Amino acid sequence: MKKALSVLALAASGLASGICWAQPPADCKPSELNIPGAPYPCVFPDHRAIFRVSAPDAQKVEVRVGTGFPMTKGQDGLWYVTTTPLVEGFHYYMLRIDGSSVADPATNSYFGGGSWSSAVEIPAHDADFYSHKEVPHGVVREQWYYSNITKKWRRAYIYTPPEYDTSAKTRYPVLYLLHGWGENEQGWTFQGHVDQIMDNMIADKKAKPMIVVMDNLNAVKPGDDGSIYNARGVLTQAVPQPNQNAQLGAPGVPGAGPGAARPRAGAPGASGAARPAGAARPRMMLSPTFTEMMFTDLIPTVEKNYRVAPGRENRAMAGLSMGGMQTYTTGLENLDKFAYLGGFSGSCGGRGEFDPKTSCNGAFADPAAFNQKVKVLFLSTGSVEGPGVKKFSDELTAAGIHNVYFESPGTAHEWLTWRRALQDFAPRLFR
Amino acid sequence: MKKALSVLALAASGLASGICWAQPPADCKPSELNIPGAPYPCVFPDHRAIFRVSAPDAQKVEVRVGTGFPMTKGQDGLWYVTTTPLVEGFHYYMLRIDGSSVADPATNSYFGGGSWSSAVEIPAHDADFYSHKEVPHGVVREQWYYSNITKKWRRAYIYTPPEYDTSAKTRYPVLYLLHGWGENEQGWTFQGHVDQIMDNMIADKKAKPMIVVMDNLNAVKPGDDGSIYNARGVLTQAVPQPNQNAQLGAPGVPGAGPGAARPRAGAPGASGAARPAGAARPRMMLSPTFTEMMFTDLIPTVEKNYRVAPGRENRAMAGLSMGGMQTYTTGLENLDKFAYLGGFSGSCGGRGEFDPKTSCNGAFADPAAFNQKVKVLFLSTGSVEGPGVKKFSDELTAAGIHNVYFESPGTAHEWLTWRRALQDFAPRLFR
Repeated sequence: MKKALSVLALAASGLASGICWAQPPADCKPSELNIPGAPYPCVFPDHRAIFRVSAPDAQKVEVRVGTGFPMTKGQDGLWYVTTTPLVEGFHYYMLRIDGSSVADPATNSYFGGGSWSSAVEIPAHDADFYSHKEVPHGVVREQWYYSNITKKWRRAYIYTPPEYDTSAKTRYPVLYLLHGWGENEQGWTFQGHVDQIMDNMIADKKAKPMIVVMDNLNAVKPGDDGSIYNARGVLTQAVPQPNQNAQLGAPGVPGAGPGAARPRAGAPGASGAARPAGAARPRMMLSPTFTEMMFTDLIPTVEKNYRVAPGRENRAMAGLSMGGMQTYTTGLENLDKFAYLGGFSGSCGGRGEFDPKTSCNGAFADPAAFNQKVKVLFLSTGSVEGPGVKKFSDELTAAGIHNVYFESPGTAHEWLTWRRALQDFAPRLFR
Repeated sequence: MKKALSVLALAASGLASGICWAQPPADCKPSELNIPGAPYPCVFPDHRAIFRVSAPDAQKVEVRVGTGFPMTKGQDGLWYVTTTPLVEGFHYYMLRIDGSSVADPATNSYFGGGSWSSAVEIPAHDADFYSHKEVPHGVVREQWYYSNITKKWRRAYIYTPPEYDTSAKTRYPVLYLLHGWGENEQGWTFQGHVDQIMDNMIADKKAKPMIVVMDNLNAVKPGDDGSIYNARGVLTQAVPQPNQNAQLGAPGVPGAGPGAARPRAGAPGASGAARPAGAARPRMMLSPTFTEMMFTDLIPTVEKNYRVAPGRENRAMAGLSMGGMQTYTTGLENLDKFAYLGGFSGSCGGRGEFDPKTSCNGAFADPAAFNQKVKVLFLSTGSVEGPGVKKFSDELTAAGIHNVYFESPGTAHEWLTWRRALQDFAPRLFR
């Protein structure tokens, strides 16, 4: 149906323009994620987008932004398509050129879905909160450190608040913030705008100045067969619980309409050239090594090199999608180390029967004790992601577990959902 | 000839393996620039590399790493090629799939040649100086600032030395270090390993602790027709002096053999899908706005937000390729602000007749005065880049201008040349 619509849309635009846009139509603005000066992809006020590709000798070209939009060769020999209206926010996408799934050279590249993907940004009505403003700026630092668990050098991205360099004596609380499936430690900075979100909220006194540590979920011991990446660099392994993958989705799944909440094999990156076309999107599991690495290497590195306020009440952990699962897995088993936990479109529940005594390894068996320890237990999702997270929040509430539920209106398993989740979560921390 | 060789090489490897490598031959090690777990591209001890691409329905696939290597479909339906031996170091490359020039999803992406390119790293015999070691680590910070000249938000990458956070009173000298044609402010960090190079040299007491500011050459005023990017995001504009482009080359030109010193239209990124295949690689000019932006916005931002030692003797400027040209253009006209200048594979000379009275706008007309002001004038090149830089150094010396010449053995207009140039240049600074 979408394809039919897009073909009609293409025909319509085609008739209007003769399908030959050296420059886009005046009301089609280049996506802010394009490389400097690139006119395509461009976005119409109604959120339709025009994509353009140079593939002189190709037989079939399509752009996969949530669903596939077949492209047509224009009079200028370049391939064009006008999509149906896309959901506001950040969407990964890939091109498929004669069966090869590749990134579009016209946009910046972002690591998502297990490979470097293209992306298009549909201006959101509430983009102000993650936009650049004339406020004091923190910085995101690339912090290298050696892991004694993985025996490799690792890179964490660390946000320090605007006053960090000038308040030489102040110590700050820390939020450990994880990316999702097939992404890396850069996601929250380049896709998530974590620095603009925090700068703006700190300037508005909505959030306390804090350090945000963004590390990589991929933590594998040497020779460990339990690698969460397969030989083709795609996150893999069996799923601990049935339907978890379906409920969890993949960050690579764009929200090109209501259907986008349901992960599909065509998700960008997940269907990257690193994996033969048509193969099912690999399922995932958590890295059993991450928690060990975090406590052995990451937290000590942060507390040695940064002015960190001590104790569990100054330490929070959150993550999106698979990073939310990791947060609940790591955090619930270590409540002596964290007072705040957040799962953005991912947690330990929402699937199958909930039993307070046994679900999530019995972490919720004693509500009174749990509520006394955990200052904020946060769950969030996009309104078109499905009922899993809301169901889990209700189940927790019914079991007497205090929790906060946030829902991003109209968005799917994507970055605008998570930018908004951070905006709702961060002000609740370290109070 | 190269193609013929590569076909023979492929045939040979093919016979040995049946051209079906789910995993590479045991002695072909995955490039360190691959995405996690990706087995291809892999590199043999003799520096041949095997590339693999999934393009089920493509008619013609080749990898362009300096020159084009046509790929052949293996028994597993994937495309393979074994290249001739590649020069050691970092090489950008692009795939050409049925005429479309795109990045390879199997590697990390790097902004070079005007778009996001793939890259392969051929282990260098001297890789130790830019490798991760157990030494105190500085950090690279992403510093956003608003430009009153371009009226846009800009991002500088800023290296601060290991002791920066703990020596709260110390002020540091600053090296302003520029990328090359078609690259951006990330180049020196992600392609150049500036943080490892500086960390290692500071630990060895070879270089003084310093701040390194890496900004973006692209500086265009609103509505300025003098944009250095054209509508397709490719650096463009006429060349101020004849043959400048040919002498300068493009960072996107891999060094797959001696011929690589000569830029060719097939340079990765420069021949990216953003520009129709076969079009000549656009020529370039310096951004006239950069110098104005640097003094109005960048330097004030750095000196306001970082503990910077004052005065020209604590300020150096250098750059590679087009960044070297910008350095000489900006620096020679502002010797009251810089005491150290470096041009890595790029400067203001080396082309046509040198006249000390008029060349480089007469900056060298008074050798005694120049030598008294400039503590280090540095020029470097790769040994296979051509004679331009050495010629200029000799001309300067003949004119009585003190200068330092460094040559990277066996390398072309590429990142290993510039990593080595920084290694030679940085220890000479702020003495």
